[in-house]
Amino acid sequence: MNQKRKIAVVVTARPSYSRVKTVLSAIQQHPDLDLQLVVAASALLDRYGSAINYIEKDGFAIAAKVFNVLEGENLTAAAKTTGIGILELSTVFDNLKPDIVVTVADRFETMATAIAASYMNIPLAHIQGGEVTGNIDEKVRHAITKLADYHFVASENAKERVIKLGEEPNVVFNTGCPSIDLATTVLQSTSLPFDPYEKYGGVGAKPDLSEGYLVVMQHPVTTEYQDSRKHIEATLEAIHSLKKPTLWFWPNVDAGADGTSTGIRAFREQHQLPNVHFFKNMEGKDFLQLLQHSSCLIGNSSVGIRECAFLGIPVVNIGSRQNRRDRGGNSIDVDYSQEKIEAAILFAITKGKSLSSPIYGNGNAGVYIADLLLQLPLQFHKTITY
Amino acid sequence: MNQKRKIAVVVTARPSYSRVKTVLSAIQQHPDLDLQLVVAASALLDRYGSAINYIEKDGFAIAAKVFNVLEGENLTAAAKTTGIGILELSTVFDNLKPDIVVTVADRFETMATAIAASYMNIPLAHIQGGEVTGNIDEKVRHAITKLADYHFVASENAKERVIKLGEEPNVVFNTGCPSIDLATTVLQSTSLPFDPYEKYGGVGAKPDLSEGYLVVMQHPVTTEYQDSRKHIEATLEAIHSLKKPTLWFWPNVDAGADGTSTGIRAFREQHQLPNVHFFKNMEGKDFLQLLQHSSCLIGNSSVGIRECAFLGIPVVNIGSRQNRRDRGGNSIDVDYSQEKIEAAILFAITKGKSLSSPIYGNGNAGVYIADLLLQLPLQFHKTITY
Amino acid sequence: MNQKRKIAVVVTARPSYSRVKTVLSAIQQHPDLDLQLVVAASALLDRYGSAINYIEKDGFAIAAKVFNVLEGENLTAAAKTTGIGILELSTVFDNLKPDIVVTVADRFETMATAIAASYMNIPLAHIQGGEVTGNIDEKVRHAITKLADYHFVASENAKERVIKLGEEPNVVFNTGCPSIDLATTVLQSTSLPFDPYEKYGGVGAKPDLSEGYLVVMQHPVTTEYQDSRKHIEATLEAIHSLKKPTLWFWPNVDAGADGTSTGIRAFREQHQLPNVHFFKNMEGKDFLQLLQHSSCLIGNSSVGIRECAFLGIPVVNIGSRQNRRDRGGNSIDVDYSQEKIEAAILFAITKGKSLSSPIYGNGNAGVYIADLLLQLPLQFHKTITY
Amino acid sequence: MNQKRKIAVVVTARPSYSRVKTVLSAIQQHPDLDLQLVVAASALLDRYGSAINYIEKDGFAIAAKVFNVLEGENLTAAAKTTGIGILELSTVFDNLKPDIVVTVADRFETMATAIAASYMNIPLAHIQGGEVTGNIDEKVRHAITKLADYHFVASENAKERVIKLGEEPNVVFNTGCPSIDLATTVLQSTSLPFDPYEKYGGVGAKPDLSEGYLVVMQHPVTTEYQDSRKHIEATLEAIHSLKKPTLWFWPNVDAGADGTSTGIRAFREQHQLPNVHFFKNMEGKDFLQLLQHSSCLIGNSSVGIRECAFLGIPVVNIGSRQNRRDRGGNSIDVDYSQEKIEAAILFAITKGKSLSSPIYGNGNAGVYIADLLLQLPLQFHKTITY
Repeated sequence: MNQKRKIAVVVTARPSYSRVKTVLSAIQQHPDLDLQLVVAASALLDRYGSAINYIEKDGFAIAAKVFNVLEGENLTAAAKTTGIGILELSTVFDNLKPDIVVTVADRFETMATAIAASYMNIPLAHIQGGEVTGNIDEKVRHAITKLADYHFVASENAKERVIKLGEEPNVVFNTGCPSIDLATTVLQSTSLPFDPYEKYGGVGAKPDLSEGYLVVMQHPVTTEYQDSRKHIEATLEAIHSLKKPTLWFWPNVDAGADGTSTGIRAFREQHQLPNVHFFKNMEGKDFLQLLQHSSCLIGNSSVGIRECAFLGIPVVNIGSRQNRRDRGGNSIDVDYSQEKIEAAILFAITKGKSLSSPIYGNGNAGVYIADLLLQLPLQFHKTITY
Repeated sequence: MNQKRKIAVVVTARPSYSRVKTVLSAIQQHPDLDLQLVVAASALLDRYGSAINYIEKDGFAIAAKVFNVLEGENLTAAAKTTGIGILELSTVFDNLKPDIVVTVADRFETMATAIAASYMNIPLAHIQGGEVTGNIDEKVRHAITKLADYHFVASENAKERVIKLGEEPNVVFNTGCPSIDLATTVLQSTSLPFDPYEKYGGVGAKPDLSEGYLVVMQHPVTTEYQDSRKHIEATLEAIHSLKKPTLWFWPNVDAGADGTSTGIRAFREQHQLPNVHFFKNMEGKDFLQLLQHSSCLIGNSSVGIRECAFLGIPVVNIGSRQNRRDRGGNSIDVDYSQEKIEAAILFAITKGKSLSSPIYGNGNAGVYIADLLLQLPLQFHKTITY
Repeated sequence: MNQKRKIAVVVTARPSYSRVKTVLSAIQQHPDLDLQLVVAASALLDRYGSAINYIEKDGFAIAAKVFNVLEGENLTAAAKTTGIGILELSTVFDNLKPDIVVTVADRFETMATAIAASYMNIPLAHIQGGEVTGNIDEKVRHAITKLADYHFVASENAKERVIKLGEEPNVVFNTGCPSIDLATTVLQSTSLPFDPYEKYGGVGAKPDLSEGYLVVMQHPVTTEYQDSRKHIEATLEAIHSLKKPTLWFWPNVDAGADGTSTGIRAFREQHQLPNVHFFKNMEGKDFLQLLQHSSCLIGNSSVGIRECAFLGIPVVNIGSRQNRRDRGGNSIDVDYSQEKIEAAILFAITKGKSLSSPIYGNGNAGVYIADLLLQLPLQFHKTITY
Repeated sequence: MNQKRKIAVVVTARPSYSRVKTVLSAIQQHPDLDLQLVVAASALLDRYGSAINYIEKDGFAIAAKVFNVLEGENLTAAAKTTGIGILELSTVFDNLKPDIVVTVADRFETMATAIAASYMNIPLAHIQGGEVTGNIDEKVRHAITKLADYHFVASENAKERVIKLGEEPNVVFNTGCPSIDLATTVLQSTSLPFDPYEKYGGVGAKPDLSEGYLVVMQHPVTTEYQDSRKHIEATLEAIHSLKKPTLWFWPNVDAGADGTSTGIRAFREQHQLPNVHFFKNMEGKDFLQLLQHSSCLIGNSSVGIRECAFLGIPVVNIGSRQNRRDRGGNSIDVDYSQEKIEAAILFAITKGKSLSSPIYGNGNAGVYIADLLLQLPLQFHKTITY
């Protein structure tokens, strides 16, 4: 009798879930694969958008939950969160006995998945290695590459870089980014198919969206921890000054998250912000619909670099968070400066949509990855190629 | 007023302590550096030779002790030990506030030092990156390279490899291996200056050493966890059959440590081993003296590859643990086979000493590294070079 | 030469700090005691009022900080926070080597202090054992009594109860509650000596306080975790309906803290609350001044039972949190019911101040406890008395 | 449809498993109960007799394994082991969602079970509370009583004591000790039904057992940590001097375990001990057979106090470990003195078997406890009775 391969995927944050949702579906639907979905860290917490609720609503069975986010206003908490993650995930893997563990991207706590799996001699697949950004994420990302046995990267540049890092070319695959899979579904959409205020609540004004609107999503940048409040204020001032209908998303958890959140909260107390509505989060597909019909995305989310490149949505990319990531033609980079942010938004609106760029994939990453997870030989022993 | 740079060095095992002892001395003696020595993991435990006792005897002040070895007969315990290490070391660094953290080599738990420091934006120096061995140590070693900001490597090949891994050449230094510093002190020794039985106790027979003797040091190999008992038995059979005076050192803690230890214990119960004496451990310098006057070192210790290359001592290197590490002319590689081990030992004795090889340094690594720790600009922000 | 006794006090929350501040001062000022102040858990976090800032401002040197609050919306996080606390505090005690460890009251995470100290054979003193409340705090409180070697209780009833629990009478002392020490300083105050809006910021309306005002402080009740939002809404509705000037304090961290906080936030978004100002926290002494000049304290804080009994301030005590704690004549108990809360507040205002009750001490607890910490024989070996 | 009650039992050591084996069987066989067996701590480790192997052999399904023993030669490790246990067990309970958690006796790490369950509002049953011994175990035991909701005690004295501790009489049951259940099966045995050397291996001499033999089982005493080596040497000298056939069992893990083990190992290296055979452990029932046919049990095991009272076997009980536990007429107490131990052994042999004492139960504890676990109302909210 042929046993199914057990694939444990560890999801630790709302954006990671959105990113790999089509991979999870493809594994779940595959007759020869058995999905073991582990939900951990901020993906379980209300403050960070409760990815768990969407996961359950989307019908994925959850094999284990791991609460490991340590509270704190400093980087120490990020380290500790990772330590607790290793402690707990090693027990989880010990009980689930997966054939392959999959870790996603480069958030600090994904290192816990990588260490637990690799130390336990479980073959480790890494989605989205090989990219370049220049902050702590980059240390984490490349370190995970050195722990991983299979690499499912999102662009040709990334593939080349992973191979240069000494990985065997035959375990490095440019699958495209699975987030693009989801974006294909809204490419033809001609109007926003839901009322975001009604469907997602949130707080603040409810500006009229019929004449176009801005979307803001700006996360703290870990290495600039002390500055996160100042950074968010530049964006807040710019949006406040432009007075355009704006939908704003709260940031992820990170060492500086409270700086960013506090900045937003304080600004709201002092100003009316009559054109801004705040959301905690949104289902991936609805968020893509929202972007598809927006005038411009502002902030430093990787969605601007990836999905928006595919969709051709104008993006004002602020600060260093996406530094050196491959860009499509849709993106304008600016500093943390109110004036520059305002000017860039106005220009982006004028410029309008770009052509779709295939730079991060063509929409079949989920199925491709599931197929590789079945076909690849199980191995955890590797050596550098040079 | 000029403040001293605070250098936290984390020592997690007896052999690591021996390796970096001259670095610790050089930091301690440097007028502009302040040594913060953290002793953790098996370095604190009797079962693994209590490095802590030697550290204290050598006069180093200990800034913090961290007990983090989780017991267990499987790889899960190695992962958990690392997780606990991160939890604890982040508190230690938070209190000590070092300017630079130094991590040594590639044992699994050294990852805890690397993650705690890099996540907390403390510049991280790595001693002995860039080497190639082909087991889990290699994943750990290269991952730490990707987290580290400065690289103090032990050979030209290692330097080249770290640079290929995408590190800026101006932060990669071939300092030589500090273990060689110590070896310089015994190079001219003409006879064993102490009685090992008297000075170090130990158990078993007390063979006469005046006509030459063998030294055995064989550690379990993590990726071959299940086989560690079988592996040690091949060596035990060979030594038992040769009937030569032999001094045997117990292995380090590792996922398979108990397999190896159990194998030795069981063999001792069944056989007389009238020519073998067992030691738990020995001060680094005394151990080098012992090697200097031995006929041959047998096992898989990196001492055979490094110090013995410098000293020209014949080495029978068993199995995969030192795979692909640079070799001097003193070393013979064999499989886990009683026959091959016996033949190699006999040949090695006949062949005798080799010329000293400078492949792992020329004896000034400690001073060189201390100097770099003072001169290097403090930085923790890096990006891959390609 | 006579060495000072080292007394480690672990403070894990803002209210605990307020409670034992005079003990800390008395230890610090004692020529034969050496204070080792450990600040941990929510006492370090902005969300819970950053006790650490007050501690530093009050001039206490901090021997160690321990971040151990695990985020989560369920009781699992409380258990995990305690587990991490043990891990970390045992390292802290191992390094500080205190002669006595002092733990305060009965918050869930204080169990970590009690276990680390008692397991390490360090004599453990417990402040405020022997009280009765009927929730999870009570399990914790009495369990800590069984781990502790000295008991500094706050009332005669508590003393009797600790002795009934099988403790030797000669290690049980009714020192009074140290929080009363602080209250003595405001007993004669005739007007509020500072402007709370100016000194403490906060958010919301700024009602005129000159004609009297209400103070609200209501924490979630752990065993009624699911209901914490409903509970807080009853109070919010009552305050909203009464339209009196009100100063409201955010709750502590607890398993249900987010339910309470979320309830308050949601209510603020829906209603104007034109008579309510919200504070995160306040220095202990200023808070007592605020109570001294208030019409009534509403909620379930132990301040209503203790300090307000001493000061004679009317208190509307809601729900089960203070169940079975000894009461002075100043307190009215009500259910979680808008109507009952409103009626009780109106009655309390009419009734006005009560006579001062000595039930929780007479103001010299800090000095008394410091003296005991010096005089008591060091011991950690005990047996039940029956 | 009626759902089965889920009963999680956490077993953390070999002797605990032996003690509650009949409880596990009774739960497993009960049509309305669902056994969730969690195996943790030293019960998983070879060094401490691998209870896990017996558990699996006995056919119990294991719901989760938790590795949480931290290595170390000091009491800090005991505290940390408990902290890690809480971290892990809370995740386990979160996933298993038991209706009741059962914790056994008073080993330090059982506190982890008690805290995780009680903090998570899961009703907690405690087997074997209310006893008195006078060491750290006693602090742990009574603290667990204050966290537990149901108490299944082993004697009338214990029942009375738990009620005095403020527990409601209607949740305190004298079920007898389940270890006695097992002892009933050997009561009629007339000769040893297996060859212990053949069945259990072990090391050392193989004395002839046909003319009677001694059994030794001596554990380190936590509060006398420093002295454990000296203590074991007194017993070793006595046994060495008596030269009677002796079967010796290695001690449990505890803070001082290594002192005891080291003492035994060192003694064996120095002396022949031609009449002593050493076992790591033995199945519970076989161990009882061994006792049933022995001349005398020597050491400080609670087996001497309980099972041997029921079986009437003479016991020489050494030191303080069983202080104040109820005794049958079979037991003689002595100090850690070679002379006294020798004399007591000689006297015990002469005296021979006592009458069976029902002091710790009459052999139906397992079934009684299983029945209570089904019938008791689920509750986790309690308050002290006075």
